[in-house]
Amino acid sequence: MAELKELTSSEDNYSQWYNDLVVKADLAENSAVRGCMVIKPYGYAIWEKMQAELDRMFKQTGHVNAYFPLFIPKSFFSKEAEHVEGFAKECAVVTHYRLRTNASKTGVEVDPAAKLEEELIVRPTSETIIWSTYKNWIQSYRDLPVLVNQWANVVRWEMRTRLFLRTTEFLWQEGHTAHATEQEAMQEAQRMLEVYSDFAENFMAMPVIKGIKSANERFAGATETFCIEAMMQDGKALQSGTSHFLGQNFAKAFDVQYINKENKLEYVWATSWGVSTRLMGALIMAHSDNNGLVLPPKLAPVQVVIVPIYKNDEQLQKISEKVNALVERLKALNISVKFDNSDNKKPGWKFAEYELKGVPVRLAIGARDLENGTVEIMRRDTLEKETVAFENIENNIVALLDEIQKNIFLKAFNFRASVTREVNSYEEFKVEIEKGGFLSAHWDGTSETEDKIKADTKATIRCIPLDRKEEKGICMVTGKRSEGRVLFARSY
Amino acid sequence: MAELKELTSSEDNYSQWYNDLVVKADLAENSAVRGCMVIKPYGYAIWEKMQAELDRMFKQTGHVNAYFPLFIPKSFFSKEAEHVEGFAKECAVVTHYRLRTNASKTGVEVDPAAKLEEELIVRPTSETIIWSTYKNWIQSYRDLPVLVNQWANVVRWEMRTRLFLRTTEFLWQEGHTAHATEQEAMQEAQRMLEVYSDFAENFMAMPVIKGIKSANERFAGATETFCIEAMMQDGKALQSGTSHFLGQNFAKAFDVQYINKENKLEYVWATSWGVSTRLMGALIMAHSDNNGLVLPPKLAPVQVVIVPIYKNDEQLQKISEKVNALVERLKALNISVKFDNSDNKKPGWKFAEYELKGVPVRLAIGARDLENGTVEIMRRDTLEKETVAFENIENNIVALLDEIQKNIFLKAFNFRASVTREVNSYEEFKVEIEKGGFLSAHWDGTSETEDKIKADTKATIRCIPLDRKEEKGICMVTGKRSEGRVLFARSY
Repeated sequence: MAELKELTSSEDNYSQWYNDLVVKADLAENSAVRGCMVIKPYGYAIWEKMQAELDRMFKQTGHVNAYFPLFIPKSFFSKEAEHVEGFAKECAVVTHYRLRTNASKTGVEVDPAAKLEEELIVRPTSETIIWSTYKNWIQSYRDLPVLVNQWANVVRWEMRTRLFLRTTEFLWQEGHTAHATEQEAMQEAQRMLEVYSDFAENFMAMPVIKGIKSANERFAGATETFCIEAMMQDGKALQSGTSHFLGQNFAKAFDVQYINKENKLEYVWATSWGVSTRLMGALIMAHSDNNGLVLPPKLAPVQVVIVPIYKNDEQLQKISEKVNALVERLKALNISVKFDNSDNKKPGWKFAEYELKGVPVRLAIGARDLENGTVEIMRRDTLEKETVAFENIENNIVALLDEIQKNIFLKAFNFRASVTREVNSYEEFKVEIEKGGFLSAHWDGTSETEDKIKADTKATIRCIPLDRKEEKGICMVTGKRSEGRVLFARSY
Repeated sequence: MAELKELTSSEDNYSQWYNDLVVKADLAENSAVRGCMVIKPYGYAIWEKMQAELDRMFKQTGHVNAYFPLFIPKSFFSKEAEHVEGFAKECAVVTHYRLRTNASKTGVEVDPAAKLEEELIVRPTSETIIWSTYKNWIQSYRDLPVLVNQWANVVRWEMRTRLFLRTTEFLWQEGHTAHATEQEAMQEAQRMLEVYSDFAENFMAMPVIKGIKSANERFAGATETFCIEAMMQDGKALQSGTSHFLGQNFAKAFDVQYINKENKLEYVWATSWGVSTRLMGALIMAHSDNNGLVLPPKLAPVQVVIVPIYKNDEQLQKISEKVNALVERLKALNISVKFDNSDNKKPGWKFAEYELKGVPVRLAIGARDLENGTVEIMRRDTLEKETVAFENIENNIVALLDEIQKNIFLKAFNFRASVTREVNSYEEFKVEIEKGGFLSAHWDGTSETEDKIKADTKATIRCIPLDRKEEKGICMVTGKRSEGRVLFARSY
């Protein structure tokens, strides 16, 4: 069993390490349907914690949830020209609505008589169906703003898939807001970028760069795409959330106008913003190691596990008495705790299992600890062990969970700093990009140059950082004028 | 505006009243996609409260959440013969995975080159995809039980749809559990029936009959279907939740066996159970009246609304000071409260609006109340108003919310009692069924007799009540021996 759980080391094969980890830590697995995953209970429990926190943040910023149809009529995709051009080709298409028993009575087949007049697309994103709905919701400035979020599944037909990172079906939230003014919509797009950044850094313990996408990487149909970009431990970047200022593009496509205070008709301004189960992939790759997951305490389904070490029932009973009281005290402090007194597994097996699962704090308590009034405490992030007094251990644990949350953020922050550097020539760029990380370089602002860099090096502009320093320069590729440095990386 | 909000009276046209109410109270509306609804923010907020409560109950009974694919390969439906026979014909079928720009460049069309080798069915329920997954999860008795629930959207291609009650796409939860023994699986199916009944009665304030379905009404693929049946105010029954004992049917179809403690291979025993957004329809029809929704306080998104009545800003400010302090005290008591101080609507409009929305308690406070230290309090269920002391009004409100919750349950309970009666001849049955309600009658236990009753009267057996009295008799239709009375009704 222990052997079965062994991970490929991340240095040997990062990609295999990731896949092993997702499967062996019981987070997710591939399903019988190509490109679709099963999110297993332990993985889903982490996603639920993410959802709960994000949902709280959305509501705190004035948003409400709603639900729109899974299916979108094909014709809707033609309404916003850029949207369909850049986006909506690789989709699951529903053409029929009935099965029938086949002639040999051995199975079912599609009933050709049940063909839809207009095909339906399984939503790859919901701008079109939602804006067709908003047309009925919005007449006057009094109906604005509309601040709606949806938790949903979406489908994009991906040819090469990877658990959590790129799957045909995935779970996400998509906010879709409507505003009376350009300024208000722009503020909303930026506000939600802040929410995402806050969530990534303070809950996922994952530092992110806030920035703007170049035209090449912009969402199809958006006027401006804001994003948060994170750095994974293999030196590749991962786009972790996007917030789009959509201008009046969808309002015009779906004819959504409102009467303003001056009694004049105007088109509505829009944003959309989303994060997905892709964040699970980011969380795993940002912190984990060759022993398994490392979870930030704020998102760990089990924050503390307690393993008893005993030779006989009498010892177990004495340990259990002490531990049960502690479990109650921890629960009262809102700490999720598991006392694993299962008798069919050895302590060593349990230690490995909970390290694999990324439980932040492990307590082990044996006969000698009972005598001495002690307990062994281990922190998952550093794997450091210490024997400490059992009395008031809960205070110790509260502080330690906080310390771990901060430490794994700091570790990821320092790692990112160590792989982020400025480069000043294309020669240097081509050498450095092989080592991974973020490269900050001057660029002339054109799509052609970005295309060339991508073709030469597989690197793209991850973002134009919002907080970049004022520094004009010359493009490393063309020598043309540059307005400032942008961040390049290879990415997931 | 007030006119727009007027409902058809339920006595004139119950069906129209229901539809008006759903739309005008901002719960849901039809979408651009035939049969699919948009759940609007206010409706979704009620569903979220239902979800949160049910999810808590599922976890308390040892279940965990997971997520399985939206799509199911067509061949899976052929594996459990009864399941496909009785169930899975009216489905959305995905046949292609790509669109392309059409020749005239005016829109998109399905790319014929992107045809799937095997069609995918949008899940109408997930037994097949889940049991194909469980095959990999279950090897030994140590892997059992598996107690998993999923919150998901499902699609059943309905020809005639009604908001919440019958829609092509709907939201639901589906529990799918696997057990080592028949007895344990049967206990699980019954335990979840209890959870549903508890939820319906104590949160939805909707009394339900717990029972067993006749073979005609049983879930396709189940050995036994348990259900809760509720009575709507128009005398029609509504099936509100089902819990299925599936025997070893799906384990055999998907070859899911485990090694028992005696080291022998055995097939696994299964249950599945679900409730859906249909419960929203039940909630609306169980309690509401011609003024609008009546919501049980435990599921009301806003439990208390406070409307200020003022002539000038100075009065509003004085009222606001008192009210803001009260709002804080109510929030501290975990009561959701809205102070509607919007100045573009008159108090009368607000009163009508919050009655329509079913807010359980309304406070109105004006200049005279300020002088007298009073406030007007109205309860939505009875529409009774009273002027009471403002001081310590929060204690009053806590008690009143509790009283309303109990009262609307009692009202529904008494209504159901008033429309439930025993009938002893088929002649009497045919007369009585026209009046609606539950008819308790003797039946010979055959499908043929049930079919005849349905053809003659549109009534079906809603259930064989679990707590029916011991009373043998003779079937009202055939005169054959009956093992006891069963409950008939017309139903949604």
